[in-house]
Amino acid sequence: MTFQSLADVRARLAALPGPDAAASAAAEARNGQLTKPPGALGRLEHLAIWMAGWQGTDRPHADRPQIVIFAGNHGVTAKGVSAFPAEVTVQMVANFTHGGAAINQLAKAFGARLDVHALELDRPTADFTEGPAMSEAEVVAALEAGFAAVDSEADLFVAGEMGIGNTTAAAAIATALYGGTGWAGRGTGVDDAGLRRKEAAVAAGVERHAAALSDPLEVLRCLGGREIAAMAGAILGARAQRIPVILDGFIACAAAAVLDRAAPGALDHCIAGHQSAEGAHERLLERLGKAPLLSLGLRLGEGSGAALAIGVVKGAVACHSGMATFAEAGVAAGA
Amino acid sequence: MTFQSLADVRARLAALPGPDAAASAAAEARNGQLTKPPGALGRLEHLAIWMAGWQGTDRPHADRPQIVIFAGNHGVTAKGVSAFPAEVTVQMVANFTHGGAAINQLAKAFGARLDVHALELDRPTADFTEGPAMSEAEVVAALEAGFAAVDSEADLFVAGEMGIGNTTAAAAIATALYGGTGWAGRGTGVDDAGLRRKEAAVAAGVERHAAALSDPLEVLRCLGGREIAAMAGAILGARAQRIPVILDGFIACAAAAVLDRAAPGALDHCIAGHQSAEGAHERLLERLGKAPLLSLGLRLGEGSGAALAIGVVKGAVACHSGMATFAEAGVAAGA
Repeated sequence: MTFQSLADVRARLAALPGPDAAASAAAEARNGQLTKPPGALGRLEHLAIWMAGWQGTDRPHADRPQIVIFAGNHGVTAKGVSAFPAEVTVQMVANFTHGGAAINQLAKAFGARLDVHALELDRPTADFTEGPAMSEAEVVAALEAGFAAVDSEADLFVAGEMGIGNTTAAAAIATALYGGTGWAGRGTGVDDAGLRRKEAAVAAGVERHAAALSDPLEVLRCLGGREIAAMAGAILGARAQRIPVILDGFIACAAAAVLDRAAPGALDHCIAGHQSAEGAHERLLERLGKAPLLSLGLRLGEGSGAALAIGVVKGAVACHSGMATFAEAGVAAGA
Repeated sequence: MTFQSLADVRARLAALPGPDAAASAAAEARNGQLTKPPGALGRLEHLAIWMAGWQGTDRPHADRPQIVIFAGNHGVTAKGVSAFPAEVTVQMVANFTHGGAAINQLAKAFGARLDVHALELDRPTADFTEGPAMSEAEVVAALEAGFAAVDSEADLFVAGEMGIGNTTAAAAIATALYGGTGWAGRGTGVDDAGLRRKEAAVAAGVERHAAALSDPLEVLRCLGGREIAAMAGAILGARAQRIPVILDGFIACAAAAVLDRAAPGALDHCIAGHQSAEGAHERLLERLGKAPLLSLGLRLGEGSGAALAIGVVKGAVACHSGMATFAEAGVAAGA
């Protein structure tokens, strides 16, 4: 066990490894010699150099991506915050296991390993409008599950989620971390009345736990969910192993935001895979200082937007690591 | 030979096949039954349904993408319009052949067949500021080469290009087709003086051939280049076989624009793979009515932006064709 308590998580957040500066510099030098006009591959060049730093090599790769889906159930669904009934969480976990969901197809298309961790689906978190969503032991167990889920052989990591009600939890986390209103959105597609119920639940939760909310890990415990805590744990687990991460949508970014607020720089090993159609995701990405690679109107979760971005990262590292230099190819460099 | 004259090209443009409406409808029906909230895959859903229509099946695929690079040389390079010397065209063709260019890595990463057609590199087109770039026989031969280059087994097609000086030709085409100024951009990276030379060459070419420019195919002949005509021919060749096309950047879109102006709807089988960093590409995409899938600051040519978008299309069709329906998975549909 890495984490016995939130104090252990705080200790880990205080000792994060950084990228390999020599590898970044070597990749930057190599990039300048490749057979293309300077800068002509745009963001692909930055991506490849960033991957090089975290992987500690001037020839970065994305041959063994890993996607982990964490699933959890939420007591706040009692407040009528979702267009889908709570039993869909367990049904969708079965769908993941049988290979029928969107993320299964995307994992196959991009050659990614896919793991599914269902976190005590028969024991939803408490309704956060009435008390803390989780005890310390519960949130630590979820963080630990995420931390341990990262394959040390992976060279790129995506954390995804499934959990009816979890856009409400994510909106509550964002509200607690950043203040303001309007963090609740349509999720899987609630109507106007449902959206008002979500807004009310978020406001009630933030008010109820106001005294605890200056501490980001307490925000996670009081307002989060098991799959959200597990995603935070997994992003931290990837960092501990210097494995680059592609962030998914609103809920994954809410999990990531907890780490960012707890330890600035904690997401330096992460890029934003996409901008979701979930209303407040754009605003959350701005808070994280991350520009999305894709913006295609996805709002599914499951890690699907980040999985799609694996293709972009594969393209970036393939160009960087596979192209000939001007000298190798006998091509004249520009004026 | 499909084309003996521009009249043959016009005849082909007047008899374009459309998509399979029954397949589109079947794909749309299937899309509504897949295990996800309605619309949650955003543009991926539209992409899959569009692919279904052109492929004539409710289970579209992107298993055999083909990328063809056409290369040509341009007499207008005598006017100092590029940051690179003209001999780079032939050097880069050798780089493609030896597998060292960006497009080779992207083709490999996305499992695409890559063909390279060098079009009379030792015989540049005429300097269009002094006379028509090509004779009718020359432009027809280039259109024919493109038309014939499309593999009938391909299920997705990308036309790319290499040709020092060809952003100047593309800017002249766009100016002739749409009017206005400011279509010339930095290309591979010309300085301010080079940009002024490009603008002057474009203005001179459009003025010199003003009498011919109401006819889009004459625009192509007078101001284009062999690789640009070949791309237009290839896009037309894909249409003849109902193979969907991903458009690349500014030069590929200038080639496509000739078809669009000659026959409205001629690009219905095309999507925009990306928005290039070449200044006027955004404006050209607006004229074509195409929203780009990606916007990552690429400005390399070679079909690279479109090749990167193959990954997005693969993801879209994988989800559509591989996902379980609510009934198959035993998942409750939303409220």
